[in-house]
Amino acid sequence: MSITPTRNDALATQLDNAINNKTKPLGSLGVLEALAKQIGMIQNTRDIAITKPAILVFAADHGIVAEGISAYPQDVTWQMVENFLAGGAAINVFATQNHCTLRVVDAGVNHDFGPRDGLTDRKLAHGTRNFAHEPAMSHDLCQTALAVGAALAAELDGNVVGFGEMGIGNTTAAAALMHKLTGIPVAQCVGAGTGLSAEGILHKQHVIEAAIAKHANVKEPQEVLATFGGLEIAMMTGAMLKAAELRKVLLIDGFIVTSALLVAARMQPAILDYCVFAHCSNENGHQQMLAALGARPLMNLGLRLGEGTGCALALPLLHAAANFLNQMATFESAQVSEKSE
Amino acid sequence: MSITPTRNDALATQLDNAINNKTKPLGSLGVLEALAKQIGMIQNTRDIAITKPAILVFAADHGIVAEGISAYPQDVTWQMVENFLAGGAAINVFATQNHCTLRVVDAGVNHDFGPRDGLTDRKLAHGTRNFAHEPAMSHDLCQTALAVGAALAAELDGNVVGFGEMGIGNTTAAAALMHKLTGIPVAQCVGAGTGLSAEGILHKQHVIEAAIAKHANVKEPQEVLATFGGLEIAMMTGAMLKAAELRKVLLIDGFIVTSALLVAARMQPAILDYCVFAHCSNENGHQQMLAALGARPLMNLGLRLGEGTGCALALPLLHAAANFLNQMATFESAQVSEKSE
Repeated sequence: MSITPTRNDALATQLDNAINNKTKPLGSLGVLEALAKQIGMIQNTRDIAITKPAILVFAADHGIVAEGISAYPQDVTWQMVENFLAGGAAINVFATQNHCTLRVVDAGVNHDFGPRDGLTDRKLAHGTRNFAHEPAMSHDLCQTALAVGAALAAELDGNVVGFGEMGIGNTTAAAALMHKLTGIPVAQCVGAGTGLSAEGILHKQHVIEAAIAKHANVKEPQEVLATFGGLEIAMMTGAMLKAAELRKVLLIDGFIVTSALLVAARMQPAILDYCVFAHCSNENGHQQMLAALGARPLMNLGLRLGEGTGCALALPLLHAAANFLNQMATFESAQVSEKSE
Repeated sequence: MSITPTRNDALATQLDNAINNKTKPLGSLGVLEALAKQIGMIQNTRDIAITKPAILVFAADHGIVAEGISAYPQDVTWQMVENFLAGGAAINVFATQNHCTLRVVDAGVNHDFGPRDGLTDRKLAHGTRNFAHEPAMSHDLCQTALAVGAALAAELDGNVVGFGEMGIGNTTAAAALMHKLTGIPVAQCVGAGTGLSAEGILHKQHVIEAAIAKHANVKEPQEVLATFGGLEIAMMTGAMLKAAELRKVLLIDGFIVTSALLVAARMQPAILDYCVFAHCSNENGHQQMLAALGARPLMNLGLRLGEGTGCALALPLLHAAANFLNQMATFESAQVSEKSE
């Protein structure tokens, strides 16, 4: 698949003019103006719309938890999936509030749910292998995860897709991906995850550094993904690539979701044209990861929860961007005087 | 009137426990957790609710425009009021999107609208006097504006009130208030307003500095308000004081609204317990004004439009705070394992 950059000079000018003629001082809607323009460029039209937004939440387990890198036991992954299905998690609350479809995908949870209403079963394994000792996934498994994720994105009928995840241990995977793909020192890529102590964070750093040394020859983005990633991360990467190919708006959540995008962007840099960064999370490495992508997040709420919660919370800002462009009067239509100097 | 601090240690502990038992890592909802607690403390209950939020938009004109301190002509004040009544302004779009009542108040616009559906006529004068030469308002006029604002706040049946404003020249008034009430140098209080050039900003600074020198003896908050403020600012200050007395959540918008709060907070410091700061605006002095109040804004979207737009855009975050506290499962109810270290 191939992602087309959104460049269209005539449309860009048309959007700038439409935004600037609204009854407000020039530039006074700040990042909402850039957002409205970006949505226009993605949708390739002056008449932008937010239609049937959806959040895909991918869940999977990680072999690396055997190294004691998480504050919570692995069972929390499947327990939280149950919580999603019962409607009791933060992402349920925020998605419902903002009229956003939620699709929960079992990408590789170490638990047998059986057939369940509301759960999209795409389980490819009962978790990844422990990358302290061997690659998390084989090349083929990773390839399959990318393809399954792409197929899920192709099934969406809306034009905005947010990404979320659940997977005990996945900040460790994401930190390793971040280091390998940006070169930023591991110490700056690791964080507290669900709530490690300073000692726990240092241990996590050492586990990652040892694994990085062990797999030193791994270089290509997809190989990096297979070696250090997770099934939920790989499926997200595949879904992101496909969603951008289909010219959807991609809503990027926190540290782990951004790490999946980092892989995608190393494969196809034009994907960044399609990305709206919901927020900067409190997970230690996120700010630098965003900077490495040249991203400016919409919000900074001190979140570090994952699940796609930042995407759901950012959705009203996307609506606001579309609504001001579609609904505000112009200086001419409202007969308001223009700037006098 | 007298505002009671929200302090209630037993309730604070109850709210902390309720927030911490939700199925999420401790503190992982960031500022939304602090917001949920604050709403609980304001409403003095564990069972918080956002009911019938409203935004009051106060409009008035300013005699100081005779000094050439604005990029737009004074007529834009009444023209934008017409735009509010016709539903074509940014605040209309964002209030509608977020199901927020909008009440447009003519506090002192230099224009005769006649009786108009949707306009709350509380006009006390056709604008203020030019504070380059004389106080903007008499003591009595300022006192009346405070009382009228208080009465408007008392009429609201909802428990959240946002504040917005329209008034060509009012960043000049707000900058003067900021300087007088915080001691921050005028050069750091002035900004581009609706879009002044660097030269225009310097002229605005000199106009304010000369006026500050002329009215050097003015000290008390209400006297400062009468001398440099506007009718929309004074009415907002009165509405804020009353709304806090009635234990409503006060949603604070940008530079001008915050200057009205600055006056209120100098009169009754406990008002700050009731304030949620929607955003940090791009108007030059706003960040320092917020810092002077010890305020942490929810968002930073580069807005500098006024009208209460930041309040309307922040409303979904208030709903999110209330909803997570009211709707999320607890570790116990969802049978999710707790932290293991």
